[in-house]
Amino acid sequence: MTRPLKLNEDRLFPADARTRDIARALYREVAALPIISPHGHTDPAWFASDAPWTNATELLLAPDHYLYRMLYSQGVTLDALGVPDRNGVPATDPREAWRLFSAHYHLFRGTPSRIWLDHVFAEVFGFDTALSADTADAYFDAIGAALATPAFRPRALFDRFGIELLATTEGAHEPLDHHAAIRASGWRGRIVTTYRPDAVVDPEHHDFAVAMARFAELSGEDVYDWRGYLAAHRKRRADFRAAGATATDHGHPTAATANLSAGEAERLFRQIATGNWTPADAELFRAQMLTEFAAMSVEDGMVMQIHAGSCRNHNRVLFESHGRDKGADIPTRTDYVHALKPLLDRFGTETRLSIILFTLDESTYARELAPLAGHYPCLKLGPSWWFHDSPEGMRRFREMTTETAGFYNTVGFNDDTRAFLSIPARHDVARRVDCAFLARLVAEHRLAEWEAAELAQELAYGLVKKAYKLDDPEFPPVAAAA
Amino acid sequence: MTRPLKLNEDRLFPADARTRDIARALYREVAALPIISPHGHTDPAWFASDAPWTNATELLLAPDHYLYRMLYSQGVTLDALGVPDRNGVPATDPREAWRLFSAHYHLFRGTPSRIWLDHVFAEVFGFDTALSADTADAYFDAIGAALATPAFRPRALFDRFGIELLATTEGAHEPLDHHAAIRASGWRGRIVTTYRPDAVVDPEHHDFAVAMARFAELSGEDVYDWRGYLAAHRKRRADFRAAGATATDHGHPTAATANLSAGEAERLFRQIATGNWTPADAELFRAQMLTEFAAMSVEDGMVMQIHAGSCRNHNRVLFESHGRDKGADIPTRTDYVHALKPLLDRFGTETRLSIILFTLDESTYARELAPLAGHYPCLKLGPSWWFHDSPEGMRRFREMTTETAGFYNTVGFNDDTRAFLSIPARHDVARRVDCAFLARLVAEHRLAEWEAAELAQELAYGLVKKAYKLDDPEFPPVAAAA
Amino acid sequence: MTRPLKLNEDRLFPADARTRDIARALYREVAALPIISPHGHTDPAWFASDAPWTNATELLLAPDHYLYRMLYSQGVTLDALGVPDRNGVPATDPREAWRLFSAHYHLFRGTPSRIWLDHVFAEVFGFDTALSADTADAYFDAIGAALATPAFRPRALFDRFGIELLATTEGAHEPLDHHAAIRASGWRGRIVTTYRPDAVVDPEHHDFAVAMARFAELSGEDVYDWRGYLAAHRKRRADFRAAGATATDHGHPTAATANLSAGEAERLFRQIATGNWTPADAELFRAQMLTEFAAMSVEDGMVMQIHAGSCRNHNRVLFESHGRDKGADIPTRTDYVHALKPLLDRFGTETRLSIILFTLDESTYARELAPLAGHYPCLKLGPSWWFHDSPEGMRRFREMTTETAGFYNTVGFNDDTRAFLSIPARHDVARRVDCAFLARLVAEHRLAEWEAAELAQELAYGLVKKAYKLDDPEFPPVAAAA
Repeated sequence: MTRPLKLNEDRLFPADARTRDIARALYREVAALPIISPHGHTDPAWFASDAPWTNATELLLAPDHYLYRMLYSQGVTLDALGVPDRNGVPATDPREAWRLFSAHYHLFRGTPSRIWLDHVFAEVFGFDTALSADTADAYFDAIGAALATPAFRPRALFDRFGIELLATTEGAHEPLDHHAAIRASGWRGRIVTTYRPDAVVDPEHHDFAVAMARFAELSGEDVYDWRGYLAAHRKRRADFRAAGATATDHGHPTAATANLSAGEAERLFRQIATGNWTPADAELFRAQMLTEFAAMSVEDGMVMQIHAGSCRNHNRVLFESHGRDKGADIPTRTDYVHALKPLLDRFGTETRLSIILFTLDESTYARELAPLAGHYPCLKLGPSWWFHDSPEGMRRFREMTTETAGFYNTVGFNDDTRAFLSIPARHDVARRVDCAFLARLVAEHRLAEWEAAELAQELAYGLVKKAYKLDDPEFPPVAAAA
Repeated sequence: MTRPLKLNEDRLFPADARTRDIARALYREVAALPIISPHGHTDPAWFASDAPWTNATELLLAPDHYLYRMLYSQGVTLDALGVPDRNGVPATDPREAWRLFSAHYHLFRGTPSRIWLDHVFAEVFGFDTALSADTADAYFDAIGAALATPAFRPRALFDRFGIELLATTEGAHEPLDHHAAIRASGWRGRIVTTYRPDAVVDPEHHDFAVAMARFAELSGEDVYDWRGYLAAHRKRRADFRAAGATATDHGHPTAATANLSAGEAERLFRQIATGNWTPADAELFRAQMLTEFAAMSVEDGMVMQIHAGSCRNHNRVLFESHGRDKGADIPTRTDYVHALKPLLDRFGTETRLSIILFTLDESTYARELAPLAGHYPCLKLGPSWWFHDSPEGMRRFREMTTETAGFYNTVGFNDDTRAFLSIPARHDVARRVDCAFLARLVAEHRLAEWEAAELAQELAYGLVKKAYKLDDPEFPPVAAAA
Repeated sequence: MTRPLKLNEDRLFPADARTRDIARALYREVAALPIISPHGHTDPAWFASDAPWTNATELLLAPDHYLYRMLYSQGVTLDALGVPDRNGVPATDPREAWRLFSAHYHLFRGTPSRIWLDHVFAEVFGFDTALSADTADAYFDAIGAALATPAFRPRALFDRFGIELLATTEGAHEPLDHHAAIRASGWRGRIVTTYRPDAVVDPEHHDFAVAMARFAELSGEDVYDWRGYLAAHRKRRADFRAAGATATDHGHPTAATANLSAGEAERLFRQIATGNWTPADAELFRAQMLTEFAAMSVEDGMVMQIHAGSCRNHNRVLFESHGRDKGADIPTRTDYVHALKPLLDRFGTETRLSIILFTLDESTYARELAPLAGHYPCLKLGPSWWFHDSPEGMRRFREMTTETAGFYNTVGFNDDTRAFLSIPARHDVARRVDCAFLARLVAEHRLAEWEAAELAQELAYGLVKKAYKLDDPEFPPVAAAA
């Protein structure tokens, strides 16, 4: 049986008629604002080469752990879905993988993945029947055909999506060739990078040794010496700024920071560099490095992002067969109050420092993060993250942070995605949910309608530019070479 | 002053007219579905003997810690309510106890106990005036009179309630005579047992020594030897399966699991069996046993339930006078991510393993449990439990788990009760709250109405049968001897 | 541009028309009830001297850390706002400070501070245009002019606000002169004190040594001897009762309690008194003192309040320049289940003991606090506190505690403020939010309307009087000397 696919124009707005009318009016003014995506994981190679994507499975399914983790949880193997393992892409027929996915599409009822995908299907590809086992082949064929056309090349979609700026994330040990190629190409899409040094900061990272070697090469510094190591970071940060970066990003298991003396830090680094460390040393080193990066940010003005609290690669067997980032990262309870104190004791009142905090532990919203951001000038709250980047998750974020931190200590929306086609869908969801929240405040006479209208603009567009210094003269936009 | 008692047909539905209409339509299709009660604590003796209950106090009040804990919190003594202490049932006049309860009935405003009781009063007994000090005697008399009639015998009510299956819970050290008697009686009510070995797994359990002795007797194994102990569990699990069990249940203070080597496990057991252990040893033994039970489930297919996080018998004085299960169990903060890893490292990808997780720590819903269940094939989420088995608790459960785990990694409703008469009320509340949640998704255009209708059926009936393997050919229904 | 200021009569009620109508009807009956403020931090000197306040900045802005913390978080210095530092009031022009505050008033959108201030502006001062940069001077002038009139003296406002009782908080080491002066003055406003011994109980308190010396003087006891120290507390508690106190208050970093033997307690005290202690000793001493205070409450009937879980003075630099209570206190994760057990093991069933628990960790509402208060006769739940004393915070409090603890184990509202002019606003918000919550229960047919009406009265007026023993013959009202 075939079901229609139609995005209702009031989706995600409250059912109450008065509140819905207010939400609709607020949304109307922000729906078409340009998209600023200041943090995410799209591949800059797409925009450098502008090569066409191949098929629905390789574009939408196999790289998206939000999707295959759900099917995996119901007993579907990753091989059957075409997800690469440590030996590369399996020999699965992409069409068969797509059929399998389509037959399980009901699993996504009530999830944000469903909302994003339906948006992509309807808005990007123009489908008007819902995905199901019955329509799997029609979908696969139509998507494949569309992707072969110029209008579905990466740059064409970037322009069509109304993206004003897109930030990718590269490691300290990675070259920025794709960004250089984009600039050299003369295409004017504004794609910038972000400095993510985790692989050379976390001795427990599986690529640490390799990454350090590449870091040495790229920086030309002796990164096995404490002074050389810090100098290498400074050099590479400058490289990243030249490629448009205004921000760094730090994905640590906890939010721990440390404030060691110079001598202690150097001794600790020597242990790390020589492979002579315990897990506690590794944690202390990551903690100290957050403080070192804060020091560098005080110098160079780069905005710090801290994404803390993910227990990575929880599924031992899957990690052994398939490696990292396969949907097996699980959030953990996270402390910020004591964890951030060493860094804040040293730099908490530095006016040039700006740190955006993210959490996977919602119990910290009202208890720790909103009180911290509602006090410290250097702290801002990143939007609801990862598992919580969803209608209910965003609503809880606003309900639990606004009363203490206000709206102006938040930084707008991050899509944080590697699923490029879903970017407009994700921003649309965020704008709708924020308008719904504001509409409730108006309907309950807690805000005037004109204030809500101002706030809707700020949440969709204004705050993110300010928080990521995108208009800051200190960070001039990187111009295309043409 | 006498007040009317009338259950509104729209109770627990949202006030918004559009959403309410949707909820009502969804509920209409599931209201009369058979009840499956896969986990609870009713007494199988009731159905074996089919003897009449005596009076309101002994049936409804004295055994129900949800009720007397509230009165106790306001200074009423348990003696005055007829609650048994370590010396047995106090000499309190049941009618006086009932009067005292009735005079305090206002304390339950806003609680689920109030909803369940009013349902029992109106639907099971047909009252149309509310319980209060003024109507206490009339209630006591009418309930007593009803209970003396055949229509209010346990089996008659079981049939009237439309119960398709009811699971009780027995210890590894307990005989299954009542279940045998039920089957031998020729009555066709499907009542099954559940394997709950806590008393022979937890050395800190007050009945550990006695339970071990009974366990040895019933199994005919040397349970003080590690191999004999494991063999006894296997034997008794087989006994339980023969009495219809498809599941085991584990009520541990934490969710800790361990993965000791065979030698370590045997050494640890020797300490436990000889009484030569510390609290840390006890915790490690419970943890290791969860992993051992997972191994057995991989063999015999029984579904594991883990009910973790209750600090039992918190009130020292009350425990000394009245013993266990007297309303003094208090939830505690509970970790699942690190706690379950040892078990999952060993069995996390076993396709025959199925573990249903319960929590008393709602902060783990979105942070830990939904991400775990939304990834691991062997993990499912049990419904909101105990203190959270309530309209607001169920709503929070859906709001905080659905976006990450979806609906299909949940397992329908458990009433988990020893209050047999409240079973229809509890399932009715669950169905209403789930329909209300689905209705909101429909009203906000996040689900199509036909999808919500399918889901309402699954949540009320379909998922529980699948999760507890009630239709699995591996577990043929136990037939009545007749 | 000037915007109107008008308090909507339906503010904070739900948008749904049916629910709103019910809320409005409930609120109508409680809106004008007298205010009982059983816990707060207003200055008794105001009422003793009845001297006029000076200007908007000194009255409303400079003492209110809710306000200046938000501006500070956005880079405004405390000096520029006229906030005193360790050297006293800065030389800032109060009018300039007020202008700065007014220009940043948009930061408070969505916060309770905005609701309270607008209420003060509209209801206390009669403004009908909103505060903004454009109206800053007009506000400053009008407020200054009003404060110079007799109608805006402290006692006149106390009477105008309909306050039946107001409790202040004084330290064990502080005299009660202002309270004596109030009574001696013949004015009949009922202002009582509360016994807050933190400064002589917490060796880590920065005033500990000085406070101990004053404690010795005022009590005439040898407070450096364990027996003398306890006797001094008993004497001062009697002094406080004579000044109307019915309650004590304990603001500890954690809720830890201890149950040491007499000998252990005495040894520990000797270490504390001689300055020979570690942080762990300090924590243990605070813990033991909660149990000692419970013992005293069993004797003298004073109600204990425990305000646990604030990490004080988190901002090192700010603490060094400005001292305590400057908006840099951050909540922390807090355990109650294990923390309170030592005290409860000893006194948990004492019928004369009553302890009101407060938390800054909302994850404990449903998990720990409601189960504890729904069981122990001596435990009650204080209202949502500090960062959570807000519409969303109060709603979450009711949603997460009512189903387990009911309404009758809660104690009405505390404004807990040093901002005297905001007291009517804060009570009005609490009454509105409670009526909105009750209205939802009525609209969902979970409560009858007459029950909700009874509860609205209890939540606004009845429960607080009972919980704080304000009508208890054991605590006769302190009569004015006239």
